[in-house]
Amino acid sequence: MIDSESGTPYLYERYWLQHPEAEFRLLPSDNIGYLDFPGPVLPRLEAAIIRLHAQVGNAITEGRRIVVGVGSAEVLMASMWVQAGAAMKSSTSNGPVQVYSQPPYYSAYPEVATALGSRDFTWTNMSSNDLSSAQQDVVEFACSPNNPDGALQNQTIAGSRVIHDHAYYWPHYTPIMHPVDYGPQDIAVFTLSKLTGHASSRIGWAVVGDPALADGMQQYVNWHGNIPLESQARAATLLEHVIGSQGGIFSYGRVEMQRRWTLLSDLAAGQQRFTFQSRQAAFDHWSGRTEMATPPYLWIRCNQERDADCAMTLQQAGITPRDGQKFGASAQYARLSLLMRQMDFDKMALKLERLMMG
Amino acid sequence: MIDSESGTPYLYERYWLQHPEAEFRLLPSDNIGYLDFPGPVLPRLEAAIIRLHAQVGNAITEGRRIVVGVGSAEVLMASMWVQAGAAMKSSTSNGPVQVYSQPPYYSAYPEVATALGSRDFTWTNMSSNDLSSAQQDVVEFACSPNNPDGALQNQTIAGSRVIHDHAYYWPHYTPIMHPVDYGPQDIAVFTLSKLTGHASSRIGWAVVGDPALADGMQQYVNWHGNIPLESQARAATLLEHVIGSQGGIFSYGRVEMQRRWTLLSDLAAGQQRFTFQSRQAAFDHWSGRTEMATPPYLWIRCNQERDADCAMTLQQAGITPRDGQKFGASAQYARLSLLMRQMDFDKMALKLERLMMG
Repeated sequence: MIDSESGTPYLYERYWLQHPEAEFRLLPSDNIGYLDFPGPVLPRLEAAIIRLHAQVGNAITEGRRIVVGVGSAEVLMASMWVQAGAAMKSSTSNGPVQVYSQPPYYSAYPEVATALGSRDFTWTNMSSNDLSSAQQDVVEFACSPNNPDGALQNQTIAGSRVIHDHAYYWPHYTPIMHPVDYGPQDIAVFTLSKLTGHASSRIGWAVVGDPALADGMQQYVNWHGNIPLESQARAATLLEHVIGSQGGIFSYGRVEMQRRWTLLSDLAAGQQRFTFQSRQAAFDHWSGRTEMATPPYLWIRCNQERDADCAMTLQQAGITPRDGQKFGASAQYARLSLLMRQMDFDKMALKLERLMMG
Repeated sequence: MIDSESGTPYLYERYWLQHPEAEFRLLPSDNIGYLDFPGPVLPRLEAAIIRLHAQVGNAITEGRRIVVGVGSAEVLMASMWVQAGAAMKSSTSNGPVQVYSQPPYYSAYPEVATALGSRDFTWTNMSSNDLSSAQQDVVEFACSPNNPDGALQNQTIAGSRVIHDHAYYWPHYTPIMHPVDYGPQDIAVFTLSKLTGHASSRIGWAVVGDPALADGMQQYVNWHGNIPLESQARAATLLEHVIGSQGGIFSYGRVEMQRRWTLLSDLAAGQQRFTFQSRQAAFDHWSGRTEMATPPYLWIRCNQERDADCAMTLQQAGITPRDGQKFGASAQYARLSLLMRQMDFDKMALKLERLMMG
């Protein structure tokens, strides 16, 4: 079996094996006591995040705050909590705030919204049209490029409070068309895990325009223990390496992702059984060239009746996918991660090829 | 000014400067992807926690689960959330669960209970007698030895769900009289920060008898991003050093804390203006000798009218304390941390001496 269910980013292991110079060391006497810098974030980490966004050109950080959390998981929790609070404060309605994302949406959003069993916010499966006409208070997750299908997404409901999830807005997945630059009601979320592969370092961050929202998020993170110094310092070491190498990890990732997508596109061309998502080319300001998008996930539609349970078909072919229903889509869809090690990807492509010829 | 407000444990810096062999290193290619071990906790860390409790004799872990969180802050949040949920489930009452701790209590408990503005639980200032007779659902924090006054604490309200905070139940602060060994409704909480001084590593853990409570706490931690690998691995390295050295950090800490308390006791003896908490001796199973308690905080009562605002008196003498009112006590009380570096402690003791002669 090839595990293509989780998006664990082993793809980047080979790059880092070639760059042992970014080693991380701490003496036992380093950083005794609580964090001894002003503010909750290690200044080296905050500086590296700001410089990297400027170098890549994917986000404007001037006049905004950087709020760091324990992975994008905690940043999304904190974002939802402050946005729901802000929506309630400016509302006359009594009911819980509705948390929405346009399908297909990242499968974690409904989990985040229902996790704590809060009476203040709740996940909704209403359509954006119905929510708009019902004049509900809405917090909206907009993932761009989107997990699972790579589409560029934005707000769909006027007046909603938006959390823009930009986990994949980096050059190895998409042309960088412009830096994100939202108004004060919006929150933009990024994460180390899909950028360098260091998912277990649990470093996510938000770029936040409204200081009150940033304060609320920071409070939420502080109540949950803040962010371990070790992972902040290691993330700083890694991001400084990315900056110093002028984005060596992006060049490596883009070449390898292009190879993978070329292989997949060739497979798709000769058959009708499966449809993959379409991809767009655009001018990429990072490289100064027009580039094709290379999304991290393959979003498959099974077109034939015998494949009505698309995930089951893939599973039987030796590939573990994530069922389309987890993303608010039908069982006709399934998601395959493309971020595994090269050897595993090549095995998966071979299994996919056999299936397509079947 | 001497900062005696925060309990940041710089005391242990000198010990670790003498033990550079517990260095921590990671190559950039180490631990790519999400945590790749079964279960949420690094097996090396879990094993070290269990072995250390056995070696010190301060907790029975057999037949119990270890739940790790981002510092004791997150472990306390998760504990309160599951205990409140469990209390509500087995209750006929509709109102929020009351969160209680007998004064003087650690100043973070009211913060934890009110942080998220939950409608499910709320901090109460009712007395334990009133709560008992009102038949309220109660979650109770019992800190032992207690922050701020070092007293040994236990449940005060029959039928309450208890979170035992044992941050200071280590040999450098107290004789280890017996291992804690609670029933399945109780949660025992420990933390690295007051054990080795590595507060910014944010590693706390709970020893939990009821698997359903442990699952709930683990879910809470997972939703908030789980625990960074770097801090888990470094904590394992440090705890393995503590175990391998047969508790070298405890011997160091106890000798230095005894020196500090001898000095403080001598100061107190000659005057009536201030009263310090009393301390008890007991048989210490860790060392096999009778030992005096050496609490991490000095809990001061100002006895004279001119010192009605005890914190202000100390502040004016050049020592920043934490006001007794933050612990649910009166302004006649104040807390001084004793965990600063040796040089800072000696300066503080000198200021205290001058004040006592005034």
